[in-house]
Amino acid sequence: MTNTTISTDDSMMTLVNVFSVAPEHQQELVDVLVEATDGVMQNMPGFISANIHRSTDGRHVVNYAQWQSRAHFDAMREDPACGAHMKRAADLAEFTPIVCDVVHARHV
Amino acid sequence: MTNTTISTDDSMMTLVNVFSVAPEHQQELVDVLVEATDGVMQNMPGFISANIHRSTDGRHVVNYAQWQSRAHFDAMREDPACGAHMKRAADLAEFTPIVCDVVHARHV
Repeated sequence: MTNTTISTDDSMMTLVNVFSVAPEHQQELVDVLVEATDGVMQNMPGFISANIHRSTDGRHVVNYAQWQSRAHFDAMREDPACGAHMKRAADLAEFTPIVCDVVHARHV
Repeated sequence: MTNTTISTDDSMMTLVNVFSVAPEHQQELVDVLVEATDGVMQNMPGFISANIHRSTDGRHVVNYAQWQSRAHFDAMREDPACGAHMKRAADLAEFTPIVCDVVHARHV
């Protein structure tokens, strides 16, 4: 398994999903997203990566995810197994899924 | 220059800064953030990477940035040159800077 890399060269789709959560539910939300990633998402066609981040203030969780294409991402969202996990996440937090492209990458 | 990598192994700090912007100002905001990154941020102590993303719906810009430590990030924010760029961004968009740590990374 390689690491996730961020680059403007790739044709992949990036999803930045920002969850707003009460601090007392942050760990539970992390657990739900890790379970969804390892149990379901990583086996879906077109999955490249998912990277779960915990905010230091306790109020957010961010998933930085990559899919081969928008079509693969949309197909995943129609899958009942994925839907069940996302329902659990939605019960714990509000979320803003942002579908985006990398337009500039600078690394020292 | 190497690519940005995402990993749970690193002690670095991650900043996910989510900008909400009117679609007619999205490109201008991207330009401001690219200019800030290449003109100022990349030369600041502790800078590792900044990766500017444009949402496909036109309403967001996301900066996925990495700093060696929270102290380096805080010092950058006190720097007048950085402040001037962030003022330009703030005139164009609302933003939610999320300081976070990678807790789980899965890649196929």
